[in-house]
Amino acid sequence: MADPILIREDAASIARLTLNNPGALNALSDEMLAALKAEFTRIGEDANIRAVVLAGNGKAFCAGHDLKEMQAARANADKGRAYFLDLFTRCGEVMQMIPALPQPVIAEVHGIATAAGCQLVASCDMAVAAEGTRFGVNGVNIGLFCSTPMVALSRNVPRKQAFEMLTTGEFIDAARAREVGLVNRVVAHEALTDEAMALAGVVAAKLTAAVRIGKRAFYEQAEMGLAEAYDYAGEVMAENMLYRDTAEGVQAFIEKRKPDWADS
Amino acid sequence: MADPILIREDAASIARLTLNNPGALNALSDEMLAALKAEFTRIGEDANIRAVVLAGNGKAFCAGHDLKEMQAARANADKGRAYFLDLFTRCGEVMQMIPALPQPVIAEVHGIATAAGCQLVASCDMAVAAEGTRFGVNGVNIGLFCSTPMVALSRNVPRKQAFEMLTTGEFIDAARAREVGLVNRVVAHEALTDEAMALAGVVAAKLTAAVRIGKRAFYEQAEMGLAEAYDYAGEVMAENMLYRDTAEGVQAFIEKRKPDWADS
Amino acid sequence: MADPILIREDAASIARLTLNNPGALNALSDEMLAALKAEFTRIGEDANIRAVVLAGNGKAFCAGHDLKEMQAARANADKGRAYFLDLFTRCGEVMQMIPALPQPVIAEVHGIATAAGCQLVASCDMAVAAEGTRFGVNGVNIGLFCSTPMVALSRNVPRKQAFEMLTTGEFIDAARAREVGLVNRVVAHEALTDEAMALAGVVAAKLTAAVRIGKRAFYEQAEMGLAEAYDYAGEVMAENMLYRDTAEGVQAFIEKRKPDWADS
Repeated sequence: MADPILIREDAASIARLTLNNPGALNALSDEMLAALKAEFTRIGEDANIRAVVLAGNGKAFCAGHDLKEMQAARANADKGRAYFLDLFTRCGEVMQMIPALPQPVIAEVHGIATAAGCQLVASCDMAVAAEGTRFGVNGVNIGLFCSTPMVALSRNVPRKQAFEMLTTGEFIDAARAREVGLVNRVVAHEALTDEAMALAGVVAAKLTAAVRIGKRAFYEQAEMGLAEAYDYAGEVMAENMLYRDTAEGVQAFIEKRKPDWADS
Repeated sequence: MADPILIREDAASIARLTLNNPGALNALSDEMLAALKAEFTRIGEDANIRAVVLAGNGKAFCAGHDLKEMQAARANADKGRAYFLDLFTRCGEVMQMIPALPQPVIAEVHGIATAAGCQLVASCDMAVAAEGTRFGVNGVNIGLFCSTPMVALSRNVPRKQAFEMLTTGEFIDAARAREVGLVNRVVAHEALTDEAMALAGVVAAKLTAAVRIGKRAFYEQAEMGLAEAYDYAGEVMAENMLYRDTAEGVQAFIEKRKPDWADS
Repeated sequence: MADPILIREDAASIARLTLNNPGALNALSDEMLAALKAEFTRIGEDANIRAVVLAGNGKAFCAGHDLKEMQAARANADKGRAYFLDLFTRCGEVMQMIPALPQPVIAEVHGIATAAGCQLVASCDMAVAAEGTRFGVNGVNIGLFCSTPMVALSRNVPRKQAFEMLTTGEFIDAARAREVGLVNRVVAHEALTDEAMALAGVVAAKLTAAVRIGKRAFYEQAEMGLAEAYDYAGEVMAENMLYRDTAEGVQAFIEKRKPDWADS
């Protein structure tokens, strides 16, 4: 049996997903997008998983769409129109599944993250990058502006920086990516997996119900005005206070002891 | 008579508010929230006050909600539900009073600013921090996600940075807080009050009417699309031009002399 | 014939606009605003132009509105009310023409960029600044809060930083301007024009149709929620794929050769 295109390994409560098509620089082909959608769906329903790490095998994290597959669709009667629209719709759905997942998702990035690969980093809740990683939305170089990657990128980094990357196609390094907000942490290449897994471990050790309600609220309130966001977040937090484990967590803090969580 | 929980000292046109419950790390108890609401209301109506500095007595600026008071509400017939919702509503109202005040409000932060204490910093118009100050939204550590602090924090700092702080509960130091936009200035601890008061003094020396119209417009336009924001800001600025003191300020600038402001 | 107040020089496919009223620090007078509007209109309709650089002659990039002209309007029957509103409307229209232009616009900034001059920098898609350039929205110093510059500035830089600049009137230097997102690149003064023109050249060398569709989408999606932005960007990108030159660009990339673009 062939190697799967997407590997899932669960370590304790952390699901580690590895893009596994190194020969194609882990391109987001139809098959890869379907595999991601299926696995994200399973993870979203898996009560045992508390955090997700998304990595890539080979020399690159992800180099974006599968251009050969896209070109093949030009042979269709409509010259690919329906396929292209469907492809970007499917890709956008996979990207939007990440903030919609109940578990935090951490990108573990090395080598290069370009175009939809850079979008994948931007779509994750957090990102850890190896020194030497290069980030770009360079579709413009081949005449295909990175319009969908832009949606995620421009919600991570300041406006002029995003515009520069999109219209020049130039890459930024990992240090600059952290400065502008695209990644959280930059570490030596040999420490990358340990650091990403450790960050996932920190999050996984929290009370699951609190992280879930919080992550959902994070993205919901981001699209609201201030007053609406406060009304909503106040309700979320009052609800959170009523969890049995939160009652115990607060009490344990007051009594300077470890909480006795049913969740742990 | 006991020390007040919130001290107000007016120095010239600057109101200095000091959270004064150091034994509880200046927790935002019902009493503290009520005191802040009352004082913000008074300051909002006080034409003599041109800037506000908000500081804390003791070893911390503010450590967030009063957890013991919150736990006590669990004895209520509804297990605290109504109290918690009311608490977060009241707290959110106090936080929203800060951008709504006509005067700029500067947080003077030292020690730690955690959870709703970090939210208080994020809610202020500007913030000056002492070196060594630590900032965190660490409710997740006790099972209570900082959902309402998130509203203010995520309107100050980039998305991935905010997500990391909220889900890991980890602290950032003052230098990092400035890098990510949570504070404006970082100074040595012994210079903290001087720096915050000096910044307040700079703002207080401006034409009050201009600062008032500008601060209001700042937050109003932030929630508008570009075209609407320009329509609105254009009207605000035309109105501003018609102030007598603005006419004099512009003329004085042209004539390279000090303005003769009725306001000063 | 007098020197034009706005110089346009086309170099290959780059339109170089130079504010040319150095005696008035390139103030955005009625005449200057009209000249910018006219030139932006012409450029927007000029299929040969692929990028725009906006610079200033003399010791400053632009010092904002023409205060003497504004003061003169106070002699009107309405004390200037109609003029001021019309002025800020016209100015806002010119500022909004920049993101609406099909071509990327790069500010080439030196000396000082203050008030509406700083707004002009913020309104450009990208900005290159000379070391030593100072940026400020200092209208508050003369009693005229920079409400319209605020619209552009606050869409470039973090909230607390923008508030500080607007209410203190204090300047930031070029290095800080880059840190906070107001400019993309900072170079030695003697390299300024070369760097800005080179950046324009990089963008101008891309497929025009891709840059046009991308720039438009950049600002459109910025005002949408995530799901709407993805729906829109997916349609834009599918459309982009159907361009003849994009088909060639993608194919050339696959075949590791230079694209044969009708556009170039």
